[in-house]
Amino acid sequence: MPFLSEVPEIRFERPLFSLILGNTMLSTVPGISGAGPTPEKTLLTPVLDSELIATGAIRSRPMKPNTPTGCPTPAVITRAMMDLLGMEALFVNAGLAHPPVVPCLDLYGEPGGDPRVGDAVPRAREIFIQGQRAGQLLSGLSDLLVLGECVPGGTTTALCVLRGLGYPAKVSSSFVRNPVAQKEEICRQVQETVRSRRITDPLQVVQVGGDPMMAAAAGIASTYRSPVILAGGTQMLAVAAVIGRMGGKVPPLATTVYVRDDPSAGFPETAARLGVQVTYVDPDFGAIGHHGLARYCEGEVKEGIGAGGAMLLAALLGKSPEEIRARILSTVTGFT
Amino acid sequence: MPFLSEVPEIRFERPLFSLILGNTMLSTVPGISGAGPTPEKTLLTPVLDSELIATGAIRSRPMKPNTPTGCPTPAVITRAMMDLLGMEALFVNAGLAHPPVVPCLDLYGEPGGDPRVGDAVPRAREIFIQGQRAGQLLSGLSDLLVLGECVPGGTTTALCVLRGLGYPAKVSSSFVRNPVAQKEEICRQVQETVRSRRITDPLQVVQVGGDPMMAAAAGIASTYRSPVILAGGTQMLAVAAVIGRMGGKVPPLATTVYVRDDPSAGFPETAARLGVQVTYVDPDFGAIGHHGLARYCEGEVKEGIGAGGAMLLAALLGKSPEEIRARILSTVTGFT
Repeated sequence: MPFLSEVPEIRFERPLFSLILGNTMLSTVPGISGAGPTPEKTLLTPVLDSELIATGAIRSRPMKPNTPTGCPTPAVITRAMMDLLGMEALFVNAGLAHPPVVPCLDLYGEPGGDPRVGDAVPRAREIFIQGQRAGQLLSGLSDLLVLGECVPGGTTTALCVLRGLGYPAKVSSSFVRNPVAQKEEICRQVQETVRSRRITDPLQVVQVGGDPMMAAAAGIASTYRSPVILAGGTQMLAVAAVIGRMGGKVPPLATTVYVRDDPSAGFPETAARLGVQVTYVDPDFGAIGHHGLARYCEGEVKEGIGAGGAMLLAALLGKSPEEIRARILSTVTGFT
Repeated sequence: MPFLSEVPEIRFERPLFSLILGNTMLSTVPGISGAGPTPEKTLLTPVLDSELIATGAIRSRPMKPNTPTGCPTPAVITRAMMDLLGMEALFVNAGLAHPPVVPCLDLYGEPGGDPRVGDAVPRAREIFIQGQRAGQLLSGLSDLLVLGECVPGGTTTALCVLRGLGYPAKVSSSFVRNPVAQKEEICRQVQETVRSRRITDPLQVVQVGGDPMMAAAAGIASTYRSPVILAGGTQMLAVAAVIGRMGGKVPPLATTVYVRDDPSAGFPETAARLGVQVTYVDPDFGAIGHHGLARYCEGEVKEGIGAGGAMLLAALLGKSPEEIRARILSTVTGFT
């Protein structure tokens, strides 16, 4: 298997790697999200992941950067790549439940609510406009934007938004066993709202059933004046769908082969339907020599916080698959 | 009079103009600050000024960007320069009393307190470290940093910190009549605390009597890897003093001739004592044809939110004094 399924044809001199952080209260519903040791603590994951990427360690709280089964957070992969490249990630706060511990470009949004009890993102349009301002700002500072995200519970909001926009999509999960029935039930209620209120505006679909990251990402990516690569799995497909439905140019996407190979997600089909060009990154974690990373191959975690895009960026900047894998292994070993 | 008193010898290709926003509760003490229509509303000035610079208008609240006497906020000057240069300012939130309405790189600090009732910036060291992280981040995105600030009441905290560090400094004011006696009385109490607690660490002086902007600015400027220009008056001299006392390289500074010519401030003397190289910008507002801007020459406002540094940056980027003055006049006319 090649390291990259295909190499995007882009030229750049000043790449920027940015990660949008957000929450949806859906991640606190038991069973929905594997991105944290307990449902309530999934809300902290964007804060801890960004601390790990920015500082190289989690010191603000006594928590480990692993799933209960010992599978390392994808933030370790992203950290390893920033380290290898001598780069700093720019964090964007789209709406978090807990205050971040490292600097963030803050859009002053709020965490998304449970769409079963009311609009999930009442200020979706304002967050989109803030995203446009951020995209404007970042255009002056860089000529390639690799844009990832961290939103625990975000595959459920992705399902709600993709279906709300009329796509017969499925979505991935950080669990080995995707809680499909539970997601479908939440999605059914969102679709009912979309239908009964006759919503067609993509930002209104985000308002009803999405999360603040989506509004921020759509604003940033549609305003940024140089090439954008969306870094993530089905959550970034939802962002691509929103951008496309708003009449914008749909950016290409980078993710891991573990997302592609999730049979419950149907990722390649949805990407093709949306016209999203995808680069799949295969870091061959099965042979890397770490039992926690090997679990990615069994379908745990799979991707997150821009890990796939960070590996792609390292490759585009001339790092070999061997260097990339070696740095991931040494970084993850440093945490365990 | 030349437009620039001297031209800093720096080479750069990717300049970044950044403004640190913060509050001190001292600005709500009647008589201290002219940066707002009432003492309580001075707390809003950084939010409204940043909105004006980023969006070209103040829409979030029914307030005018002028002093009660019709003197325009220096944010109009900074907006005019960003516009002329096709640049976006990066706002840094060091600690505000009101939430911003445009995106800010947020350091998650708090507004400074009144030093007469307790430590002004209890988390000064944490904000400094957050500033270091921001400086690290901005180093990867630019090769010149022009760093301004907006802190109503900040000349009083500047006096407290300069004196607390042992400099026999005076400071400027946005009022024509500098409320010197009132500032001196606050400063006397801070000096007592510094003496009784035997404080010599510059960040502890900021903690006792400064404001969050100072901690943020010191962290950013001392970590940034390319040239920095501090854009502002006596408040930035306090930042330079903190950096110097911490053993860092003292950056050069840019401000207006209206600060230099404030007899109550003794600006050139303090700058010389601190070893700060200063470029004075003379936009000749007396002859620009606007009665509000002409008041700058009578000593009102004088400087603020990086206006002097923004004009310097425009000149460094090849704009003529005529272009600069014309754009300021057309911008200010658009607001009145």
